[in-house]
Amino acid sequence: MSTLPFPASVYSARLSRAASLAADAGLDAIVVGPGPDLQYLVGVEGDTIERLTALVIGPGATPTVVVPRMELAKVRSTAVGELGLAVADWVDGEDPYALVTSAVGDAARVGVSDALPALHVIPIGDRLGVRLELATPVLREGRMIKDAEEIAELRRAGEAIDAVHRRVHEWLRAGRTEREVAADIAEAIVTEGHRTVEFVIVGSGPNGADPHHEVSDRVIEEGDVVVVDIGGAVPSGYNSDSTRTYVVGTPAPAAAERIAVLVRAQQAAVEAVRPGATAAEVDAAARSVLTDAGLGEAFLHRTGHGIGVSVHEEPYIAPGNDLVLREGMAFSIEPGIYFAGEWGARIEDIVVVTADGGERLNVAPHGLTAVGLR
Amino acid sequence: MSTLPFPASVYSARLSRAASLAADAGLDAIVVGPGPDLQYLVGVEGDTIERLTALVIGPGATPTVVVPRMELAKVRSTAVGELGLAVADWVDGEDPYALVTSAVGDAARVGVSDALPALHVIPIGDRLGVRLELATPVLREGRMIKDAEEIAELRRAGEAIDAVHRRVHEWLRAGRTEREVAADIAEAIVTEGHRTVEFVIVGSGPNGADPHHEVSDRVIEEGDVVVVDIGGAVPSGYNSDSTRTYVVGTPAPAAAERIAVLVRAQQAAVEAVRPGATAAEVDAAARSVLTDAGLGEAFLHRTGHGIGVSVHEEPYIAPGNDLVLREGMAFSIEPGIYFAGEWGARIEDIVVVTADGGERLNVAPHGLTAVGLR
Repeated sequence: MSTLPFPASVYSARLSRAASLAADAGLDAIVVGPGPDLQYLVGVEGDTIERLTALVIGPGATPTVVVPRMELAKVRSTAVGELGLAVADWVDGEDPYALVTSAVGDAARVGVSDALPALHVIPIGDRLGVRLELATPVLREGRMIKDAEEIAELRRAGEAIDAVHRRVHEWLRAGRTEREVAADIAEAIVTEGHRTVEFVIVGSGPNGADPHHEVSDRVIEEGDVVVVDIGGAVPSGYNSDSTRTYVVGTPAPAAAERIAVLVRAQQAAVEAVRPGATAAEVDAAARSVLTDAGLGEAFLHRTGHGIGVSVHEEPYIAPGNDLVLREGMAFSIEPGIYFAGEWGARIEDIVVVTADGGERLNVAPHGLTAVGLR
Repeated sequence: MSTLPFPASVYSARLSRAASLAADAGLDAIVVGPGPDLQYLVGVEGDTIERLTALVIGPGATPTVVVPRMELAKVRSTAVGELGLAVADWVDGEDPYALVTSAVGDAARVGVSDALPALHVIPIGDRLGVRLELATPVLREGRMIKDAEEIAELRRAGEAIDAVHRRVHEWLRAGRTEREVAADIAEAIVTEGHRTVEFVIVGSGPNGADPHHEVSDRVIEEGDVVVVDIGGAVPSGYNSDSTRTYVVGTPAPAAAERIAVLVRAQQAAVEAVRPGATAAEVDAAARSVLTDAGLGEAFLHRTGHGIGVSVHEEPYIAPGNDLVLREGMAFSIEPGIYFAGEWGARIEDIVVVTADGGERLNVAPHGLTAVGLR
């Protein structure tokens, strides 16, 4: 029984591309552990466990999957089974690293996937007797450029999370806790078409001033500015991620004014997206609007991150990142402003690079949205 | 606002112990990333993100925490703030690895925590110009031996999950799907005293024959043997993990007989637990009962795993593991038998090594429990 979102031919092409990019980069083999790279390449989902699962790709040979026997059925139900990849299984008490060494052969330069934990990285390096490298440049190349089917999935995810934002007014009001509001939102994330809830941030009043606040038992008050940053994965595994800023009742005029600047900053960054622009230029487009308005210090983080089978991936839209944007890249544009102890705001859309610009996948209203008016 | 489950002095002692164990092991410094080690040492919870957070412990110096500025408030609310550890924060566009290098100094032997991903392991190794080692032997030493407060938390977790198992009969019956039953169990895991649901496995009929099956839309039938393996974290972050095997209605006599053998195998392993026994001996105690009954081939995995702030940790109760058990160790004893395409069964308790034996922290009835009788 296959549970793959795409036909096996898609995974076959991704594997061939990774092998050829590895060869181009001078890598003799790459070792991919559980995580988004493995999900992208062969459809195997799940996190690392202490028992090693790894896909070994050498430019010349058939890919081999090293897998604990108890995971074998699950792994066979993915592209690993459909493409008939070589499988080397092992049971507790046996040595999985010997299987990796054997699959890698006498490779001199070996790359590993980002997510492989030290628990496995260090013994693999020791056994092979080589200095491992990151396979990131190879693996990100495939994941970063989304094809039409992937963009369709991101679009589906965008529509699903927009539908949730359009319903936030049903739950967000004074007298409720952030946690209560978040629980309703989480339920709606699933109802509106996601298979999993990846995160629900409800940052009200001073909690909104911490960009990584999640939820608390704080009771939301009249006049609060509230950051709602939410996302989930649709059935294919592709993710949504969108932030809107709400106000309960009527905002303080100064806050409304600053959030209007933030909306302009976000718009400026979206307009800066096109093939040939750099990630840093897109970041600067948002940052300069805020800086010109005296809000540069309040913008504590980068402008965005790529998105796909993981919520955060390449390309990162950050100062200093000279990566040149290409058609098919998909990333968030999410400037924010944060005033410690007072309030914060953030506006976030996923944007896809098109042939001549950028297209927002989130179109729920962008400005400060008033809720809970009586 | 501190959110720590233990007083700051506990974390201070854990840090000192780690530093002294590192020195004993000849390590000049250890670098600990997000994950259970960081949670254990300083109370900082959460997974790795692409932005580096790391605790650097050198035997001689004050520990230093490298942290993205946007995580600073969260990190300061833990033992990092209470103990006044050195903090080196960074923002997007800056180089966090330079901060690690600076904190490590000119160390020759550097260990890293298990959970640190290749994304950070490889650049840290390259910057330091040393071959990194696993800090596992150092870090596991503290985490493996639970003190009285930690055992109290594991006991609390055990009571909470036992309370859920005692209520499984309310939800498990023919005509419902595994997913529906699992949803009710998940709700009860929280109601009965956990702060998070870590996993809910409901493996009915043939699904029970896959040790890593989670849940499906399979409709449970009269006569099904059903494996229910569940756990969560109590507010302090310590985990529960307990499995019971149920039958809907009346079991086939052959299944009842085999499960009776499994109960004896689990009992034999619990009785083998005492300071001075090895992990492999405990594993063998369960395995030999099954093998003697002709069921050795049906037992596909190790007998157990340690538990604490993570669900799976040292010590692993597995063939070939000569680790000698000591008072204060806590681990699962969970033999299982699996018949592909037919059914499976598993019985799991958490057991703590006492001064002269082992104590089960799970005491809900162990045998095949009949539910859904009309």
